[in-house]
Amino acid sequence: MSQPARALPDLATTDPVTLTRVLCDIASVSGEERAIADAVEHALRAMPHLEVLRDGDAVLARTNRARASRVVIAGHLDTVPVQGNLPTQLRTDEVDGEVLWGRGTVDMKGGVAVALHLAAAVADPAVDVTYAFYDHEEVEAAKNGLGRIARNHPAWLAADFAILGEPTSGHVEGGCNGTMRLDVRTPGCTAHSARAWRGHNAIHDLAPVLTALAAHTSETVTVDGLDYREGLNAVGVRGGIAGNMIPDDAVVTVNYRFAPSRDAAQAEAYVREVLADALAALPDATVTVTDVAEGARPGLDHPVAAAFVAAATAATGAQINPKYGWTDVARFSALGVPAVNFGPGDPSLAHADDERVPTAQIAAVADALRAWLAP
Amino acid sequence: MSQPARALPDLATTDPVTLTRVLCDIASVSGEERAIADAVEHALRAMPHLEVLRDGDAVLARTNRARASRVVIAGHLDTVPVQGNLPTQLRTDEVDGEVLWGRGTVDMKGGVAVALHLAAAVADPAVDVTYAFYDHEEVEAAKNGLGRIARNHPAWLAADFAILGEPTSGHVEGGCNGTMRLDVRTPGCTAHSARAWRGHNAIHDLAPVLTALAAHTSETVTVDGLDYREGLNAVGVRGGIAGNMIPDDAVVTVNYRFAPSRDAAQAEAYVREVLADALAALPDATVTVTDVAEGARPGLDHPVAAAFVAAATAATGAQINPKYGWTDVARFSALGVPAVNFGPGDPSLAHADDERVPTAQIAAVADALRAWLAP
Repeated sequence: MSQPARALPDLATTDPVTLTRVLCDIASVSGEERAIADAVEHALRAMPHLEVLRDGDAVLARTNRARASRVVIAGHLDTVPVQGNLPTQLRTDEVDGEVLWGRGTVDMKGGVAVALHLAAAVADPAVDVTYAFYDHEEVEAAKNGLGRIARNHPAWLAADFAILGEPTSGHVEGGCNGTMRLDVRTPGCTAHSARAWRGHNAIHDLAPVLTALAAHTSETVTVDGLDYREGLNAVGVRGGIAGNMIPDDAVVTVNYRFAPSRDAAQAEAYVREVLADALAALPDATVTVTDVAEGARPGLDHPVAAAFVAAATAATGAQINPKYGWTDVARFSALGVPAVNFGPGDPSLAHADDERVPTAQIAAVADALRAWLAP
Repeated sequence: MSQPARALPDLATTDPVTLTRVLCDIASVSGEERAIADAVEHALRAMPHLEVLRDGDAVLARTNRARASRVVIAGHLDTVPVQGNLPTQLRTDEVDGEVLWGRGTVDMKGGVAVALHLAAAVADPAVDVTYAFYDHEEVEAAKNGLGRIARNHPAWLAADFAILGEPTSGHVEGGCNGTMRLDVRTPGCTAHSARAWRGHNAIHDLAPVLTALAAHTSETVTVDGLDYREGLNAVGVRGGIAGNMIPDDAVVTVNYRFAPSRDAAQAEAYVREVLADALAALPDATVTVTDVAEGARPGLDHPVAAAFVAAATAATGAQINPKYGWTDVARFSALGVPAVNFGPGDPSLAHADDERVPTAQIAAVADALRAWLAP
């Protein structure tokens, strides 16, 4: 391919912090990833040890060393919209020391820079590696570039283990909880509220449902050695026709965040069990699953994963934690690939206007992965 | 005044059924009462025994015989919108016999026709009578013509007793319940639902409030000999930010229909007492009265009212019932005038597309009132 409009510096000799800054300054809000994808593709095709695939604005590259194991190291190229926080700036923070400030520094061009650096610098890794850089992570799931690769080129994502460079403050966050939404609907019978006895109040029937949810204590479930704290919550409630009408319909929307040891059917059964007494008193009530995404087991018992954890812990003092939010690691899990998040940056600063990453974290994450891939 | 565009037949010699039909065929949807008010005013001014007042599209007329007591007989001139149900038709119903079908036959030109008939036919009544025909009853309360008369000409509504000719199937419905709306609001603290333990779920806090409402059995309160059945109901509930957020705010709207023996402060105190245990467990919850209209005592212990009831019962076999819905009788109650509803027509057919009144009911109500006013 010809020289792209925006070019990256030499990947093998540029330190990951500088590379992060270059990547951030190529703005790439979701849907506008063309320039950065072109730059990434051009840089990777210059590496003779890599096989490169372009699909839309996703770029994949892999080593083919016939190693016993293969891992995927992945990150998305897009960001949420820029809010006056580009170009990047190097600043000094009283607590964190040197930080790189600007859109994408946390979510997640630091992780992308580390992966690009490794792709170039470790030509002969201990395990075969597939690097995946993809588009449209920050928008609706149907557009997600990793999902598209899984549909178009599933063989490219086949692996024993995957690392997603999403921000984790340099710790290892394994797997993720699943999430399910259910509507519990209570039917009633309308009437003028001046003659309430002629109707049946649907909102009143929500009382035992909300009581069961309020009384419930969520479980903590240990999966592959990590403790997943669950959550079962009403996230919405609605009902009522007018200020003088007995309502004939009321709905509470429940969100269950469930440990990756449960599948969707088990998760639904669990919610129904929690609500069993309430539902027994409400024979006309209905429970409908409106949305579900299963979680992902951390898979840290696999030897490749264990080696990674050992290297990360030794190199950076990384802690091993469960991931609570649903992330793209679940896409790997759905492909049968255990996955973890491991990247620089405080996840609570993702999407923030003052998004910023300690530069030492970028270096530490790169050191840890390099120590594992090129011991 | 000059001859109006639409004229009424001679009030004294026209039977109330025919007069109802003429009045209905002068369409008078709220806001368009000018033609019917002109016709009513013209007809009443032709009666030398009446003093007439015009205010907007309200017309009042009164006898001045220096009787020991005065009663108001009132009705509104407007209707809800016409739905292809004008002009009126005389039909034969298997159950009800002859019925007059069309908009306004029930609500409430039958009652208006009876009052106009009495105004003309009973020149020397046993009690002084003030007839009140008014506009804008079917729309927002601020436009109500009776309310405007109470502000502009309160002396014209001074009386010992009032009869509103709203449809009651020819029975006497005394007073009315009051109505109060309250918002019970529970504050919470938002968090991502994947980390629910960092927040506080406002919707869950509604559980004890709804439980108290669902468990509550409404009282029946006897006032002036009539049994007022109360109602305490959730008529609305809302809460929730997004499907992945712990909600920081939830509100249940409560409607309390309270007997006319309670004033607004007592009604509020009653609701707070019902919710006391729930609120004790929710120190941050708030209860706000958003709307209140006190009820009206039936006042049937007043000698004038008692004489009316005796006459109505003897003439038509009318039953004496409490009124549950809030009506304009409460406006009289607020002026210190006990009031009842007494008119032809099934109130459940008011506003219906097939609104219709048995013509015998119009005659019976006229007979009862005539027997009372001109014994």
